[in-house]
Amino acid sequence: MPSIPEYLKPSRLSKRADFNKETIYAILDEALFCTISYVADGKPFSIPTAFVRYGDKIYIHGSVGSHFIREIEKGIPVCISVTLMDALVVARSAFHHSINYRSVIIFAAAEKIENLQDKSDAFQWLTNKIVPHSWNYLRPIKENEINKTIALAFPVNEASAKIRTGPPIDDEEDLELPIWSGLIPLQTIRLTPIADVYSKDIPLPEHLKGLGN
Amino acid sequence: MPSIPEYLKPSRLSKRADFNKETIYAILDEALFCTISYVADGKPFSIPTAFVRYGDKIYIHGSVGSHFIREIEKGIPVCISVTLMDALVVARSAFHHSINYRSVIIFAAAEKIENLQDKSDAFQWLTNKIVPHSWNYLRPIKENEINKTIALAFPVNEASAKIRTGPPIDDEEDLELPIWSGLIPLQTIRLTPIADVYSKDIPLPEHLKGLGN
Repeated sequence: MPSIPEYLKPSRLSKRADFNKETIYAILDEALFCTISYVADGKPFSIPTAFVRYGDKIYIHGSVGSHFIREIEKGIPVCISVTLMDALVVARSAFHHSINYRSVIIFAAAEKIENLQDKSDAFQWLTNKIVPHSWNYLRPIKENEINKTIALAFPVNEASAKIRTGPPIDDEEDLELPIWSGLIPLQTIRLTPIADVYSKDIPLPEHLKGLGN
Repeated sequence: MPSIPEYLKPSRLSKRADFNKETIYAILDEALFCTISYVADGKPFSIPTAFVRYGDKIYIHGSVGSHFIREIEKGIPVCISVTLMDALVVARSAFHHSINYRSVIIFAAAEKIENLQDKSDAFQWLTNKIVPHSWNYLRPIKENEINKTIALAFPVNEASAKIRTGPPIDDEEDLELPIWSGLIPLQTIRLTPIADVYSKDIPLPEHLKGLGN
Protein backbone atom coordinates (compact mmCIF):
# COMPACT_ATOMS: atom_id res chain seq x y z
CA MET A 1 0.00 0.00 0.00
CA PRO A 2 1.55 3.31 -1.01
CA SER A 3 1.52 6.13 1.47
CA ILE A 4 1.04 9.76 0.51
CA PRO A 5 4.34 11.65 0.45
CA GLU A 6 4.37 14.40 3.06
CA TYR A 7 5.12 17.17 0.57
CA LEU A 8 1.98 16.39 -1.41
CA LYS A 9 -0.34 16.59 1.56
CA PRO A 10 -2.32 19.81 1.83
CA SER A 11 -2.36 21.40 5.22
CA ARG A 12 -5.27 20.19 7.33
CA LEU A 13 -8.30 22.30 8.17
CA SER A 14 -6.76 23.60 11.36
CA LYS A 15 -3.58 24.49 9.52
CA ARG A 16 -5.21 26.37 6.66
CA ALA A 17 -5.28 29.73 8.41
CA ASP A 18 -2.59 32.21 7.42
CA PHE A 19 -2.11 35.62 9.03
CA ASN A 20 0.79 36.68 6.83
CA LYS A 21 0.27 40.17 5.42
CA GLU A 22 1.82 39.34 2.04
CA THR A 23 -0.41 36.28 1.65
CA ILE A 24 -3.50 38.29 2.54
CA TYR A 25 -2.61 41.23 0.28
CA ALA A 26 -1.84 38.98 -2.71
CA ILE A 27 -5.34 37.46 -2.47
CA LEU A 28 -6.96 40.89 -2.10
CA ASP A 29 -5.05 42.23 -5.10
CA GLU A 30 -6.07 39.33 -7.34
CA ALA A 31 -9.79 39.40 -6.48
CA LEU A 32 -12.14 41.66 -8.44
CA PHE A 33 -14.87 41.82 -5.83
CA CYS A 34 -15.52 41.24 -2.17
CA THR A 35 -18.70 40.43 -0.27
CA ILE A 36 -19.42 42.81 2.58
CA SER A 37 -21.65 41.63 5.43
CA TYR A 38 -23.23 43.78 8.07
CA VAL A 39 -25.98 43.60 10.65
CA ALA A 40 -29.18 45.63 10.46
CA ASP A 41 -32.07 45.10 12.89
CA GLY A 42 -30.17 42.11 14.24
CA LYS A 43 -30.18 40.34 10.87
CA PRO A 44 -27.32 39.63 8.46
CA PHE A 45 -27.10 41.38 5.09
CA SER A 46 -24.41 41.04 2.48
CA ILE A 47 -23.58 42.60 -0.83
CA PRO A 48 -20.86 42.07 -3.45
CA THR A 49 -18.87 45.09 -4.52
CA ALA A 50 -15.66 45.99 -6.35
CA PHE A 51 -12.76 47.05 -4.14
CA VAL A 52 -9.09 47.89 -4.16
CA ARG A 53 -6.40 47.46 -1.55
CA TYR A 54 -3.97 50.35 -1.30
CA GLY A 55 -1.42 50.37 1.49
CA ASP A 56 -3.01 48.82 4.55
CA LYS A 57 -6.59 49.64 3.65
CA ILE A 58 -9.37 48.45 1.41
CA TYR A 59 -11.39 51.02 -0.53
CA ILE A 60 -14.89 50.74 -1.95
CA HIS A 61 -17.23 53.27 -3.46
CA GLY A 62 -20.93 53.59 -3.94
CA SER A 63 -23.75 55.94 -4.75
CA VAL A 64 -24.97 58.40 -2.13
CA GLY A 65 -28.39 56.88 -2.76
CA SER A 66 -27.34 53.33 -1.90
CA HIS A 67 -29.04 51.88 1.18
CA PHE A 68 -26.09 49.55 1.73
CA ILE A 69 -23.56 52.41 1.67
CA ARG A 70 -25.66 54.53 4.01
CA GLU A 71 -25.79 51.65 6.51
CA ILE A 72 -22.10 50.86 6.60
CA GLU A 73 -20.81 54.43 6.35
CA LYS A 74 -21.97 54.80 9.95
CA GLY A 75 -18.94 52.76 10.95
CA ILE A 76 -20.81 49.66 12.11
CA PRO A 77 -18.87 46.35 12.20
CA VAL A 78 -18.56 44.66 8.81
CA CYS A 79 -17.11 41.36 7.68
CA ILE A 80 -15.42 41.48 4.28
CA SER A 81 -15.04 38.16 2.49
CA VAL A 82 -12.88 37.55 -0.59
CA THR A 83 -12.67 34.17 -2.31
CA LEU A 84 -10.61 32.85 -5.22
CA MET A 85 -11.30 29.36 -6.55
CA ASP A 86 -8.18 27.60 -7.84
CA ALA A 87 -9.17 24.00 -8.53
CA LEU A 88 -11.75 21.30 -8.05
CA VAL A 89 -10.21 18.56 -5.92
CA VAL A 90 -11.48 15.27 -7.30
CA ALA A 91 -10.92 12.38 -4.88
CA ARG A 92 -11.71 8.66 -5.06
CA SER A 93 -14.59 9.14 -2.64
CA ALA A 94 -17.20 11.90 -2.49
CA PHE A 95 -16.22 12.44 1.14
CA HIS A 96 -12.72 13.62 0.23
CA HIS A 97 -13.78 15.89 -2.60
CA SER A 98 -12.77 19.45 -1.94
CA ILE A 99 -11.93 22.75 -3.57
CA ASN A 100 -8.56 24.46 -3.68
CA TYR A 101 -9.22 28.06 -2.78
CA ARG A 102 -7.66 31.15 -1.30
CA SER A 103 -9.94 33.26 0.86
CA VAL A 104 -9.60 36.24 3.16
CA ILE A 105 -11.85 37.47 5.93
CA ILE A 106 -11.49 41.00 7.29
CA PHE A 107 -13.30 42.43 10.30
CA ALA A 108 -13.43 46.21 10.15
CA ALA A 109 -15.53 49.36 10.26
CA ALA A 110 -15.82 51.96 7.52
CA GLU A 111 -13.93 55.24 7.59
CA LYS A 112 -15.68 57.75 5.34
CA ILE A 113 -13.36 59.69 3.06
CA GLU A 114 -14.45 63.33 2.91
CA ASN A 115 -11.53 65.12 1.30
CA LEU A 116 -12.00 65.67 -2.44
CA GLN A 117 -8.43 64.75 -3.40
CA ASP A 118 -8.42 61.66 -1.17
CA LYS A 119 -11.67 60.53 -2.75
CA SER A 120 -10.29 61.11 -6.22
CA ASP A 121 -7.19 59.08 -5.28
CA ALA A 122 -9.37 56.20 -4.09
CA PHE A 123 -11.35 56.25 -7.37
CA GLN A 124 -8.05 56.26 -9.29
CA TRP A 125 -6.76 53.20 -7.43
CA LEU A 126 -10.07 51.42 -7.93
CA THR A 127 -10.23 52.22 -11.65
CA ASN A 128 -6.63 51.19 -12.21
CA LYS A 129 -7.20 47.92 -10.40
CA ILE A 130 -10.21 46.92 -12.50
CA VAL A 131 -8.57 48.12 -15.76
CA PRO A 132 -4.82 48.55 -15.21
CA HIS A 133 -3.22 51.80 -16.44
CA SER A 134 -6.56 53.23 -17.57
CA TRP A 135 -7.03 56.31 -15.32
CA ASN A 136 -4.88 58.74 -17.32
CA TYR A 137 -6.46 57.62 -20.61
CA LEU A 138 -10.00 58.45 -19.50
CA ARG A 139 -11.96 61.69 -19.57
CA PRO A 140 -10.87 63.35 -16.28
CA ILE A 141 -13.17 62.92 -13.31
CA LYS A 142 -15.39 65.90 -12.45
CA GLU A 143 -15.96 67.38 -9.03
CA ASN A 144 -19.69 66.74 -9.15
CA GLU A 145 -18.99 63.05 -9.94
CA ILE A 146 -16.79 62.83 -6.85
CA ASN A 147 -19.52 64.48 -4.80
CA LYS A 148 -22.15 62.04 -6.04
CA THR A 149 -20.04 59.10 -4.89
CA ILE A 150 -19.19 57.95 -1.39
CA ALA A 151 -15.75 56.45 -0.76
CA LEU A 152 -15.16 54.23 2.26
CA ALA A 153 -11.89 52.86 3.62
CA PHE A 154 -11.50 49.79 5.82
CA PRO A 155 -8.25 49.11 7.69
CA VAL A 156 -6.93 45.60 7.07
CA ASN A 157 -5.80 44.95 10.64
CA GLU A 158 -8.04 42.14 11.78
CA ALA A 159 -7.73 39.76 8.86
CA SER A 160 -6.82 36.20 8.03
CA ALA A 161 -6.37 34.11 4.93
CA LYS A 162 -7.47 30.52 4.50
CA ILE A 163 -5.89 28.45 1.78
CA ARG A 164 -6.21 24.90 0.50
CA THR A 165 -3.65 23.72 -2.01
CA GLY A 166 -2.41 20.38 -3.29
CA PRO A 167 -3.94 17.13 -4.48
CA PRO A 168 -6.85 15.20 -2.98
CA ILE A 169 -6.16 13.37 0.29
CA ASP A 170 -7.82 10.01 -0.12
CA ASP A 171 -8.12 7.27 2.48
CA GLU A 172 -5.06 5.00 2.30
CA GLU A 173 -7.24 1.98 1.51
CA ASP A 174 -8.74 3.80 -1.50
CA LEU A 175 -5.43 4.60 -3.20
CA GLU A 176 -5.29 1.35 -5.13
CA LEU A 177 -8.84 1.58 -6.47
CA PRO A 178 -9.04 2.04 -10.26
CA ILE A 179 -10.59 5.48 -9.78
CA TRP A 180 -9.10 8.64 -11.26
CA SER A 181 -8.19 11.28 -8.72
CA GLY A 182 -6.60 14.66 -9.16
CA LEU A 183 -7.20 18.35 -9.74
CA ILE A 184 -9.29 20.28 -12.25
CA PRO A 185 -7.72 23.75 -12.23
CA LEU A 186 -10.03 26.75 -12.52
CA GLN A 187 -9.04 30.03 -14.11
CA THR A 188 -10.84 33.32 -14.64
CA ILE A 189 -9.77 34.87 -17.91
CA ARG A 190 -10.41 38.17 -19.65
CA LEU A 191 -11.62 37.69 -23.20
CA THR A 192 -11.04 39.94 -26.21
CA PRO A 193 -12.47 43.44 -25.58
CA ILE A 194 -15.74 44.28 -27.38
CA ALA A 195 -16.02 47.91 -28.54
CA ASP A 196 -19.29 49.77 -28.04
CA VAL A 197 -21.03 51.31 -31.07
CA TYR A 198 -19.26 54.68 -30.71
CA SER A 199 -15.77 53.13 -30.41
CA LYS A 200 -15.82 51.22 -33.70
CA ASP A 201 -13.24 53.53 -35.30
CA ILE A 202 -11.15 54.09 -32.18
CA PRO A 203 -8.07 51.89 -31.92
CA LEU A 204 -7.89 49.68 -28.83
CA PRO A 205 -5.53 51.52 -26.44
CA GLU A 206 -2.24 49.88 -25.49
CA HIS A 207 -3.32 49.21 -21.89
CA LEU A 208 -6.25 47.10 -23.10
CA LYS A 209 -4.19 45.04 -25.54
CA GLY A 210 -3.19 41.56 -24.46
CA LEU A 211 -5.93 41.38 -21.84
CA GLY A 212 -7.70 38.58 -23.70
CA ASN A 213 -6.15 35.18 -23.02
CA MET B 1 -24.39 64.21 -31.14
CA PRO B 2 -25.52 60.59 -31.28
CA SER B 3 -27.95 59.39 -28.66
CA ILE B 4 -27.71 55.94 -27.13
CA PRO B 5 -30.22 53.57 -28.71
CA GLU B 6 -32.74 52.35 -26.17
CA TYR B 7 -32.03 48.65 -26.76
CA LEU B 8 -28.38 49.13 -25.83
CA LYS B 9 -29.10 50.77 -22.50
CA PRO B 10 -28.75 48.49 -19.50
CA SER B 11 -31.50 48.70 -16.99
CA ARG B 12 -30.86 51.33 -14.32
CA LEU B 13 -29.89 50.56 -10.76
CA SER B 14 -33.48 50.56 -9.61
CA LYS B 15 -34.45 48.21 -12.39
CA ARG B 16 -31.70 45.66 -11.82
CA ALA B 17 -33.64 43.60 -9.30
CA ASP B 18 -35.22 40.42 -10.61
CA PHE B 19 -37.45 38.12 -8.58
CA ASN B 20 -38.00 35.58 -11.32
CA LYS B 21 -37.41 32.04 -10.06
CA GLU B 22 -35.78 30.86 -13.30
CA THR B 23 -33.38 33.79 -13.30
CA ILE B 24 -32.42 33.14 -9.69
CA TYR B 25 -32.03 29.38 -10.14
CA ALA B 26 -29.87 29.77 -13.27
CA ILE B 27 -27.42 31.96 -11.33
CA LEU B 28 -27.38 29.54 -8.38
CA ASP B 29 -26.75 26.58 -10.69
CA GLU B 30 -23.83 28.26 -12.44
CA ALA B 31 -22.03 29.41 -9.29
CA LEU B 32 -19.58 27.08 -7.56
CA PHE B 33 -19.71 28.73 -4.17
CA CYS B 34 -21.80 31.06 -2.06
CA THR B 35 -20.90 33.34 0.83
CA ILE B 36 -23.03 32.76 3.92
CA SER B 37 -23.34 35.57 6.45
CA TYR B 38 -24.71 35.28 9.95
CA VAL B 39 -24.74 37.23 13.19
CA ALA B 40 -22.94 36.11 16.34
CA ASP B 41 -22.69 38.33 19.43
CA GLY B 42 -24.24 41.10 17.37
CA LYS B 43 -21.42 41.06 14.82
CA PRO B 44 -21.39 39.92 11.19
CA PHE B 45 -19.49 36.83 10.10
CA SER B 46 -19.30 35.32 6.66
CA ILE B 47 -17.78 32.27 5.07
CA PRO B 48 -17.55 30.94 1.51
CA THR B 49 -18.76 27.41 0.90
CA ALA B 50 -19.74 25.09 -1.95
CA PHE B 51 -23.46 24.57 -2.41
CA VAL B 52 -26.04 23.02 -4.68
CA ARG B 53 -29.59 24.00 -5.49
CA TYR B 54 -31.99 21.11 -5.77
CA GLY B 55 -35.67 21.81 -6.18
CA ASP B 56 -36.52 24.90 -4.16
CA LYS B 57 -33.70 24.57 -1.65
CA ILE B 58 -29.99 25.17 -1.36
CA TYR B 59 -27.83 22.52 0.29
CA ILE B 60 -24.46 22.86 1.95
CA HIS B 61 -22.39 20.50 4.04
CA GLY B 62 -19.68 20.81 6.62
CA SER B 63 -17.78 19.05 9.32
CA VAL B 64 -19.41 18.39 12.70
CA GLY B 65 -16.36 20.17 14.13
CA SER B 66 -16.90 23.39 12.18
CA HIS B 67 -17.68 26.43 14.32
CA PHE B 68 -19.52 28.03 11.40
CA ILE B 69 -21.76 25.01 10.88
CA ARG B 70 -22.53 24.71 14.58
CA GLU B 71 -23.64 28.36 14.63
CA ILE B 72 -25.93 28.28 11.63
CA GLU B 73 -27.40 24.79 12.22
CA LYS B 74 -29.31 26.39 15.09
CA GLY B 75 -31.58 27.94 12.47
CA ILE B 76 -30.51 31.56 13.00
CA PRO B 77 -31.11 34.02 10.11
CA VAL B 78 -28.50 33.83 7.36
CA CYS B 79 -27.91 35.84 4.21
CA ILE B 80 -26.58 33.81 1.29
CA SER B 81 -24.81 35.75 -1.44
CA VAL B 82 -23.87 34.39 -4.87
CA THR B 83 -22.03 36.47 -7.47
CA LEU B 84 -20.98 35.81 -11.06
CA MET B 85 -18.80 38.36 -12.85
CA ASP B 86 -19.54 38.57 -16.57
CA ALA B 87 -17.61 41.58 -17.89
CA LEU B 88 -15.67 44.69 -17.02
CA VAL B 89 -17.61 47.69 -18.29
CA VAL B 90 -15.05 50.17 -19.61
CA ALA B 91 -16.53 53.65 -20.09
CA ARG B 92 -15.06 56.93 -21.33
CA SER B 93 -15.03 58.27 -17.77
CA ALA B 94 -14.03 56.53 -14.54
CA PHE B 95 -17.42 57.52 -13.13
CA HIS B 96 -19.30 55.33 -15.59
CA HIS B 97 -17.06 52.29 -15.25
CA SER B 98 -18.99 49.32 -13.97
CA ILE B 99 -19.09 45.54 -13.90
CA ASN B 100 -21.60 43.30 -15.61
CA TYR B 101 -22.60 40.75 -13.01
CA ARG B 102 -25.37 38.43 -11.95
CA SER B 103 -25.90 38.10 -8.23
CA VAL B 104 -28.42 36.52 -5.90
CA ILE B 105 -29.23 37.24 -2.29
CA ILE B 106 -31.22 34.74 -0.22
CA PHE B 107 -32.53 35.30 3.29
CA ALA B 108 -33.16 32.01 5.06
CA ALA B 109 -32.57 29.82 8.08
CA ALA B 110 -30.96 26.38 8.07
CA GLU B 111 -32.97 23.17 8.25
CA LYS B 112 -30.75 20.37 9.52
CA ILE B 113 -31.06 17.15 7.57
CA GLU B 114 -31.03 14.19 9.95
CA ASN B 115 -32.19 11.24 7.84
CA LEU B 116 -29.28 9.16 6.51
CA GLN B 117 -30.73 8.73 3.00
CA ASP B 118 -31.67 12.40 2.73
CA LYS B 119 -28.14 13.37 3.73
CA SER B 120 -26.66 10.96 1.20
CA ASP B 121 -28.94 12.47 -1.47
CA ALA B 122 -27.73 15.97 -0.62
CA PHE B 123 -24.08 14.85 -0.86
CA GLN B 124 -24.84 13.24 -4.20
CA TRP B 125 -26.37 16.45 -5.60
CA LEU B 126 -23.45 18.47 -4.28
CA THR B 127 -20.83 16.11 -5.72
CA ASN B 128 -22.57 15.94 -9.09
CA LYS B 129 -22.78 19.72 -9.24
CA ILE B 130 -19.07 20.25 -8.63
CA VAL B 131 -18.07 17.36 -10.92
CA PRO B 132 -21.01 16.42 -13.15
CA HIS B 133 -21.88 12.71 -13.46
CA SER B 134 -19.20 11.70 -10.96
CA TRP B 135 -21.17 10.20 -8.03
CA ASN B 136 -21.66 6.72 -9.50
CA TYR B 137 -18.01 6.51 -10.58
CA LEU B 138 -16.67 7.09 -7.06
CA ARG B 139 -16.06 4.69 -4.19
CA PRO B 140 -19.51 4.54 -2.52
CA ILE B 141 -20.05 6.79 0.48
CA LYS B 142 -19.87 5.10 3.91
CA GLU B 143 -22.32 5.53 6.76
CA ASN B 144 -19.62 6.85 9.08
CA GLU B 145 -18.70 9.49 6.48
CA ILE B 146 -22.32 10.63 6.39
CA ASN B 147 -22.38 10.75 10.18
CA LYS B 148 -19.22 12.86 10.30
CA THR B 149 -20.80 15.46 8.02
CA ILE B 150 -23.62 17.86 8.69
CA ALA B 151 -26.00 18.69 5.84
CA LEU B 152 -28.09 21.84 5.93
CA ALA B 153 -30.91 22.93 3.64
CA PHE B 154 -32.08 26.51 3.07
CA PRO B 155 -35.41 27.24 1.38
CA VAL B 156 -35.06 29.68 -1.52
CA ASN B 157 -38.23 31.64 -0.78
CA GLU B 158 -36.98 35.08 0.13
CA ALA B 159 -34.57 35.70 -2.70
CA SER B 160 -33.78 38.19 -5.42
CA ALA B 161 -31.36 38.46 -8.31
CA LYS B 162 -29.56 41.60 -9.40
CA ILE B 163 -28.17 41.79 -12.89
CA ARG B 164 -26.26 44.31 -14.95
CA THR B 165 -25.86 43.62 -18.65
CA GLY B 166 -25.03 45.62 -21.73
CA PRO B 167 -22.44 48.21 -22.73
CA PRO B 168 -21.21 51.21 -20.75
CA ILE B 169 -23.60 54.15 -20.41
CA ASP B 170 -21.48 57.22 -20.98
CA ASP B 171 -22.55 60.82 -20.68
CA GLU B 172 -23.92 62.04 -24.01
CA GLU B 173 -21.26 64.74 -24.26
CA ASP B 174 -18.51 62.11 -23.87
CA LEU B 175 -19.63 59.92 -26.77
CA GLU B 176 -17.61 61.79 -29.38
CA LEU B 177 -14.37 61.73 -27.40
CA PRO B 178 -11.60 59.63 -28.99
CA ILE B 179 -11.68 57.26 -26.03
CA TRP B 180 -12.29 53.54 -26.43
CA SER B 181 -15.31 52.22 -24.56
CA GLY B 182 -16.78 48.76 -24.37
CA LEU B 183 -16.79 45.45 -22.54
CA ILE B 184 -14.02 43.09 -21.45
CA PRO B 185 -15.84 39.77 -20.96
CA LEU B 186 -14.77 37.56 -18.06
CA GLN B 187 -14.99 33.80 -18.08
CA THR B 188 -14.14 31.12 -15.54
CA ILE B 189 -12.83 28.05 -17.30
CA ARG B 190 -11.88 24.54 -16.21
CA LEU B 191 -8.41 23.57 -17.39
CA THR B 192 -7.11 20.13 -18.34
CA PRO B 193 -7.38 17.74 -15.36
CA ILE B 194 -4.11 16.90 -13.54
CA ALA B 195 -3.90 13.31 -12.26
CA ASP B 196 -2.51 12.67 -8.79
CA VAL B 197 0.47 10.33 -8.39
CA TYR B 198 -1.69 7.21 -7.94
CA SER B 199 -3.85 7.92 -11.00
CA LYS B 200 -1.05 8.05 -13.56
CA ASP B 201 -2.10 4.75 -15.17
CA ILE B 202 -5.84 5.25 -14.80
CA PRO B 203 -7.56 6.60 -17.89
CA LEU B 204 -9.43 9.85 -17.46
CA PRO B 205 -13.11 8.85 -17.07
CA GLU B 206 -15.61 9.98 -19.70
CA HIS B 207 -17.33 12.45 -17.38
CA LEU B 208 -14.08 14.36 -16.88
CA LYS B 209 -13.23 14.57 -20.58
CA GLY B 210 -13.90 17.83 -22.36
CA LEU B 211 -13.95 19.80 -19.10
CA GLY B 212 -10.82 21.71 -20.08
CA ASN B 213 -11.57 24.63 -22.40
